[in-house]
Amino acid sequence: MKAISTIFFFLFCAGITAFGQATDSAMIRKIANEILQHGNAYENLRYLCKKIGPRLSGSENAQKAVLATADMLRKAGADTVYLQPCMVPHWVRGAKETAYIRFDGENVHNLHACALGNSVGSGKAGISAGVIEVRSFDELNRLGEAVIKGKIVFFNFEMNPTYIRTFRAYGESGIARRNGPAQAARYGAIGVMIRSLASNADDYPHTGGTQYNDSFPKIPAIAISTNDAIWLSAELAKKKPIDAYIKTNCEMLPDEPSFNVIGEIKGSRLPGEIITVGGHLDSWDLAEGAQDDGAGCVQAIEIIRAYSSLKIRPVRTIRAVMFMNEENGGKGAQAYLDEAVKKKENHLFALESDAGGFTPRGISLDMKEPQRNKIMGWKNLFYEYGVYEFTSGGSGSDIGPLKKVGTALAGFSPDSQRYFDVHHAGSDVFETVSKRELHLGAANMAALIWLVSEYGL
Amino acid sequence: MKAISTIFFFLFCAGITAFGQATDSAMIRKIANEILQHGNAYENLRYLCKKIGPRLSGSENAQKAVLATADMLRKAGADTVYLQPCMVPHWVRGAKETAYIRFDGENVHNLHACALGNSVGSGKAGISAGVIEVRSFDELNRLGEAVIKGKIVFFNFEMNPTYIRTFRAYGESGIARRNGPAQAARYGAIGVMIRSLASNADDYPHTGGTQYNDSFPKIPAIAISTNDAIWLSAELAKKKPIDAYIKTNCEMLPDEPSFNVIGEIKGSRLPGEIITVGGHLDSWDLAEGAQDDGAGCVQAIEIIRAYSSLKIRPVRTIRAVMFMNEENGGKGAQAYLDEAVKKKENHLFALESDAGGFTPRGISLDMKEPQRNKIMGWKNLFYEYGVYEFTSGGSGSDIGPLKKVGTALAGFSPDSQRYFDVHHAGSDVFETVSKRELHLGAANMAALIWLVSEYGL
Repeated sequence: MKAISTIFFFLFCAGITAFGQATDSAMIRKIANEILQHGNAYENLRYLCKKIGPRLSGSENAQKAVLATADMLRKAGADTVYLQPCMVPHWVRGAKETAYIRFDGENVHNLHACALGNSVGSGKAGISAGVIEVRSFDELNRLGEAVIKGKIVFFNFEMNPTYIRTFRAYGESGIARRNGPAQAARYGAIGVMIRSLASNADDYPHTGGTQYNDSFPKIPAIAISTNDAIWLSAELAKKKPIDAYIKTNCEMLPDEPSFNVIGEIKGSRLPGEIITVGGHLDSWDLAEGAQDDGAGCVQAIEIIRAYSSLKIRPVRTIRAVMFMNEENGGKGAQAYLDEAVKKKENHLFALESDAGGFTPRGISLDMKEPQRNKIMGWKNLFYEYGVYEFTSGGSGSDIGPLKKVGTALAGFSPDSQRYFDVHHAGSDVFETVSKRELHLGAANMAALIWLVSEYGL
Repeated sequence: MKAISTIFFFLFCAGITAFGQATDSAMIRKIANEILQHGNAYENLRYLCKKIGPRLSGSENAQKAVLATADMLRKAGADTVYLQPCMVPHWVRGAKETAYIRFDGENVHNLHACALGNSVGSGKAGISAGVIEVRSFDELNRLGEAVIKGKIVFFNFEMNPTYIRTFRAYGESGIARRNGPAQAARYGAIGVMIRSLASNADDYPHTGGTQYNDSFPKIPAIAISTNDAIWLSAELAKKKPIDAYIKTNCEMLPDEPSFNVIGEIKGSRLPGEIITVGGHLDSWDLAEGAQDDGAGCVQAIEIIRAYSSLKIRPVRTIRAVMFMNEENGGKGAQAYLDEAVKKKENHLFALESDAGGFTPRGISLDMKEPQRNKIMGWKNLFYEYGVYEFTSGGSGSDIGPLKKVGTALAGFSPDSQRYFDVHHAGSDVFETVSKRELHLGAANMAALIWLVSEYGL
């Protein structure tokens, strides 16, 4: 661990001390300066958020976002821009949900609620039943049909505040949203409320996809705000009889045609070796999708713009991809893989940015040991730009399928402290994004892409 | 540089591999968990920002903040709480400033403007003159009296966007605010406008202290928003005659009595060795002073609360200090030093948090080599909590004077990308602070304080 102490010496001479890194360091500085001085990612994001807005798969807005980002890629200087078709689910929320709590049949307390993505509607009459709170699946299983049948289950899974990396807490508590409705239905529940997967306490309900199990009934499922969950849990602790009423108006319509949006700069010497960089274009219907994941899209476009503006002709082909349907189906990711297989494309490397546009922290590597070692050999080039944490771990769900064709995968990991305050909620808006943070992220991504393009893996 | 690759292995076993660090690691985890689960810094900050608000030295609000933080320290469990008197400057802005641009004596364009702190008022009639833009002091000196005399100088010093650490850009461009009015007056200017020291482009003017030179006249000085500065520069480039009108209503009143607020937990074995941790309680009058520097104050109080709640009795005395008058005089800092000298106190170590309540990044060390080496020996204990950058550099202007009595100094360095978007402006409000980021900062500060208290330096 000695070396850390000398990081700041290396910041000034990383390029000189390590063989061949002087040029790399200078090139990365050039790319970073271009993005920090002239970057357009922030303005592109403003357009996506404020001129288009929420863009759930199958919606008119999603289609607008397809056309808009294709145009952004053309303006950024991609030499080829095209749309890659895919069929996507078309879930619609319908009219705003109603959800409230009744004590002894009276004394209504309205809840800040939203239906979970992919969930079924409650029917016009809505549903009404007693509320059973559970804090774990063990507890649910222990209570079983005797207690659960005919009830509304309230999954009160708090995101663990002691986990420094908030994605870990999201992964753990997220099981309530992903599997809660199916598991409650197994014991005869007629509806589900989950505590929003949020790291803060406020009034926004956070949606997100749930997955039913075909063996059990599909029951209505909502998220309630963290403030409401905290309040409800305290009320339930008083052991008074509490009923909930839920009315949701959502439904799954037939699949719709949609697209991944792709822009390339052809490689100069090895155009057949493809480097993919991207995020996902769809967002939840309640959110502008600024952090999730407009940020990742505009960062990928920005790499194309910076290369084009600096007239960098990469050795290998750089492909910026706006994936469709990450949020509730992954159909864009599958279409991208299918096309790669069909065309026998050689996908060397893929980098996804789908963890927000926050200040850069790290890069997560999911690849073979020699490839990992090669990237680790470049790590001192990133310290100056705030990237220290080179970890082994997941990459992103859009590029994940490329693992099947042996692609080395990486995920851009910005600081995660603020991400789940807004994730999948109405609060995920453009104003939460810092231009400098967004552009600094793009600069780090561009640097990694440049190194892989130049030297391979 | 090999070691970085193994950081994430060390995250899980830092305490085991290094001799004696298992206990330290467990204790730091205990402190961090306490703060992340039960921390009260965020609510204390809400009170400072929303119930009190701006609290410039000498104001009624500053006095309210003194009483409020003394109360917070008592509630946090400090065993001694006291006020340390100091006389502070009492500058007042008066009625809102008027500033506009005229083309050919007509066509008024209003500017988003505010007087610089400590500056003189324009008089009731205001001032009016042609505008001369300069981008460096070299340019000002070159133009000299021939061009400058009788004019309003517009210092258009952009914060360099390519500097990753934004404090560097602030230091460089900040010379316009600190010295611009004095230097323009030297050549006969009748007023000064500076481009706000902001890293973003918006409509907020950013104030901050200026310093006159007694050899030259004291002339009115304002900051204009970055948007206005960009606009004005473009208009001036058209070479049309442009006049500005400025009316400011500020004045310096007689000094007022005020206080540093101090809360201690007495050391168990070495109570005479004092460890100071703090921020400054005063803020500019336009801002809630959430990031600058309510955050540093409530983090210091949080350390007391966490120790008290966990019943940690430190070996050495921990003293949380809310310094008064950092923004326009440093009188609290001077009083703290004077008292230390007078009482012959032994000040072992001081840590200041005055760079915002953002996500933790580093700790800046200003101390002798052996002390620095001792702290560097603990650095792997901080990686898990996001602190990687142990640098040599400044600490904070409130603890700076303690250097005269040989105190080892350190500055907490959170991420700096967003700080200058809001610094000294009306946009520095509570809503810009993330609870998790604020508390994670307090946890890192508490950990460092604990290590120094336990092991000395």
